[in-house]
Amino acid sequence: MLDKVSVQEYMAQVGIEARAASRVLAASTTGVKNAALQAMARALDANRDLLARENEKDLAAGRENGLDAALLDRLALTPKTIDGMIEGLRQVAALPDPCGEITDLSFRPSGIQVGKMRVPLGVVGIIYESRPNVTIDAASLCLKSGNAAILRGGKEAIHSNRAIAQCIEQGLADAGLPLGCVQVVQTTDRAAVGAMITMPEYVDVIVPRGGKGLIERISSDAKVPVIKHLDGICHVYIDAKADLEKAFNIALNAKTHRYGVCNAMETLLVDESVATAILPRLASAYKEKGVELRGCDKTCALIDAKLATRDDWATEYLAPVLAIRVVASLEAAMDHIAQYSSQHTESIVTEDYTRGRRFLTEVDSSSVMINASTRFADGFEYGLGAEIGISTDKIHARGPVGLEGLTSQKWIVLGDGQIRD
Amino acid sequence: MLDKVSVQEYMAQVGIEARAASRVLAASTTGVKNAALQAMARALDANRDLLARENEKDLAAGRENGLDAALLDRLALTPKTIDGMIEGLRQVAALPDPCGEITDLSFRPSGIQVGKMRVPLGVVGIIYESRPNVTIDAASLCLKSGNAAILRGGKEAIHSNRAIAQCIEQGLADAGLPLGCVQVVQTTDRAAVGAMITMPEYVDVIVPRGGKGLIERISSDAKVPVIKHLDGICHVYIDAKADLEKAFNIALNAKTHRYGVCNAMETLLVDESVATAILPRLASAYKEKGVELRGCDKTCALIDAKLATRDDWATEYLAPVLAIRVVASLEAAMDHIAQYSSQHTESIVTEDYTRGRRFLTEVDSSSVMINASTRFADGFEYGLGAEIGISTDKIHARGPVGLEGLTSQKWIVLGDGQIRD
Repeated sequence: MLDKVSVQEYMAQVGIEARAASRVLAASTTGVKNAALQAMARALDANRDLLARENEKDLAAGRENGLDAALLDRLALTPKTIDGMIEGLRQVAALPDPCGEITDLSFRPSGIQVGKMRVPLGVVGIIYESRPNVTIDAASLCLKSGNAAILRGGKEAIHSNRAIAQCIEQGLADAGLPLGCVQVVQTTDRAAVGAMITMPEYVDVIVPRGGKGLIERISSDAKVPVIKHLDGICHVYIDAKADLEKAFNIALNAKTHRYGVCNAMETLLVDESVATAILPRLASAYKEKGVELRGCDKTCALIDAKLATRDDWATEYLAPVLAIRVVASLEAAMDHIAQYSSQHTESIVTEDYTRGRRFLTEVDSSSVMINASTRFADGFEYGLGAEIGISTDKIHARGPVGLEGLTSQKWIVLGDGQIRD
Repeated sequence: MLDKVSVQEYMAQVGIEARAASRVLAASTTGVKNAALQAMARALDANRDLLARENEKDLAAGRENGLDAALLDRLALTPKTIDGMIEGLRQVAALPDPCGEITDLSFRPSGIQVGKMRVPLGVVGIIYESRPNVTIDAASLCLKSGNAAILRGGKEAIHSNRAIAQCIEQGLADAGLPLGCVQVVQTTDRAAVGAMITMPEYVDVIVPRGGKGLIERISSDAKVPVIKHLDGICHVYIDAKADLEKAFNIALNAKTHRYGVCNAMETLLVDESVATAILPRLASAYKEKGVELRGCDKTCALIDAKLATRDDWATEYLAPVLAIRVVASLEAAMDHIAQYSSQHTESIVTEDYTRGRRFLTEVDSSSVMINASTRFADGFEYGLGAEIGISTDKIHARGPVGLEGLTSQKWIVLGDGQIRD
């Protein structure tokens, strides 16, 4: 293991190479980028034995260190996981290249023509947990969007990630791209993360993926912009004018389709005029699925539920637990959302035009829906073709972040010799 | 003056009011926002005496404290400055409202319809120097873009800013908007800035306007995203295939139209094949304007110039000084730009299609131009109608920032009861 000064120096060297490679990548054609992605897919396929062998080292160490079953499961590179990585690379190769797109080009009174060109951000640093498949995921999205990538996975996956890095390098070399285009950090020293998030001269944006604690720590210490995902405290509001059949299906799906995901509903808001009609039916459906219910006093008067505390409104359960609150109006629902939501995803169920339009306009979350399950808040469902994460930030990328979220726009000006008067 | 704890508490209160007002503002119609802007304009017009009286207090204190003539000039609220502020409010009222615009709405295979809606950022904090007219400028752009504003001007302008704040409040009240929509910080304590940039719960983005030192300090200490402008080290490259008449006009205009502005050219790059043809003629034009020339050795062999040091390539002169370097090729010019540019604005002068296209694609600056003066990098020249500043950041807003740069986009989903399978 390197000492702290050496880690700083090593990361600076990684940064310098990434910065240089980012210029080459920004000037590379879509064809070259796709060729690298395809070559990486072939290299993964050709190195299945190596990947399995190196992954087994990580798994053995993980078992020895008492990693729990879920973590070991995410660490494992099974033949199916490797198939998925190969398929993912081919899918990203098939996506349209966002770079170079010119929009809004129009003439100004001065005679210059002004527009915007979509361009890579430059160098993207990704910090993630011990899931080696994320290494390929992140590499492919950065490469396709024209960004050099610095990838720092969890230390438990270091052998797997180094083996994957060899396949990535082979792909880059095959396509004639510098190896600095995608670098997997070779040290497991935590100081590497500290260095990476404080070198704005080499890194343009950091995307941390992992637990809330990690993300908060990174955001707080970073000297580089961070695209981040914090909580997903998502709401469904069943309006007075809801179609109760739609409401039932959406409220059930938003909670029970998957529990441990950020776009699952955590609090159900029900207009008091329809609470009696919908809550008992929903309650028995939730009970059948094993969902624990915690409700306001009005809810508890209608169904069998534990009395919710203020903490329940502010909690992302990520579990078969649901908070339910009966509200007096659309305004009360929006007030509750403004106070407790993490501004991730909220949905209204209503047939009323004006209320639907108000909810859509006034609720300040990264996804706002009418008559749809919050579970649709996802890059694939939105048609992005891929997703590096879901941002709960307001500036730059908001909601699901695909290739476009890893790009920016510069202004371009076409003239015939114009000068300012 | 308040003590430090009180300043924290005061700023938190300002933040709470801004956050609450931002919800009202986000739900307000374009008509209401415009009515407030028009009412502010009327209030300024009706309070010219008050403004002059309060401004005189600032000017007297400034003279007493030995402020230099340029600072006093920027501090002064002359009848003409007030006319400009009134006219500015009316112009912003006349601009299209960016909020609510829905784009890219399309159906997905699941049956949901997905698109994006442009929305305010929420609460914008603006920190600026002792130029009271900026108070109105910033207030109008934030209000029109649906953002609550917290405005912190330089302490030398406090009396003027308080008087302007009265006019702003009158305008808000006339339109029925909460006073929290635009708040001028009432204390001159520097701790107010420290508080403002570290309360992400109340402030969504900070826009600092001022000297580089101030902006670097704010960026480094902020816990809130910062849209910032650092250097403007802008380049013009005269290519081998340049039309030398255009090159002459652009190189002269980019340097001498105004000296103290961020989009002025600071370094001229000239292809060696045209250096003999263009440099002597340019040199005498610059001499006539009193511009000091500092050149590389090849430049000094052709014209009378001081030998440039490495520092010259990295300096934003903001003065009648120009660095000139003769380069061997387009690649050498782009290498120089990649190394020394502040990524603000660069222009190539060329008649060559392929080289122009390469420069446009490969140069990574917020504005990249062909055959136009760098002085065009400006919100008004680009047709934004207004400008809160020019961003040298890569994420979110890049280059001139108008109303759109003060907004974000949320995802909207329209469904008929769709759930995830």
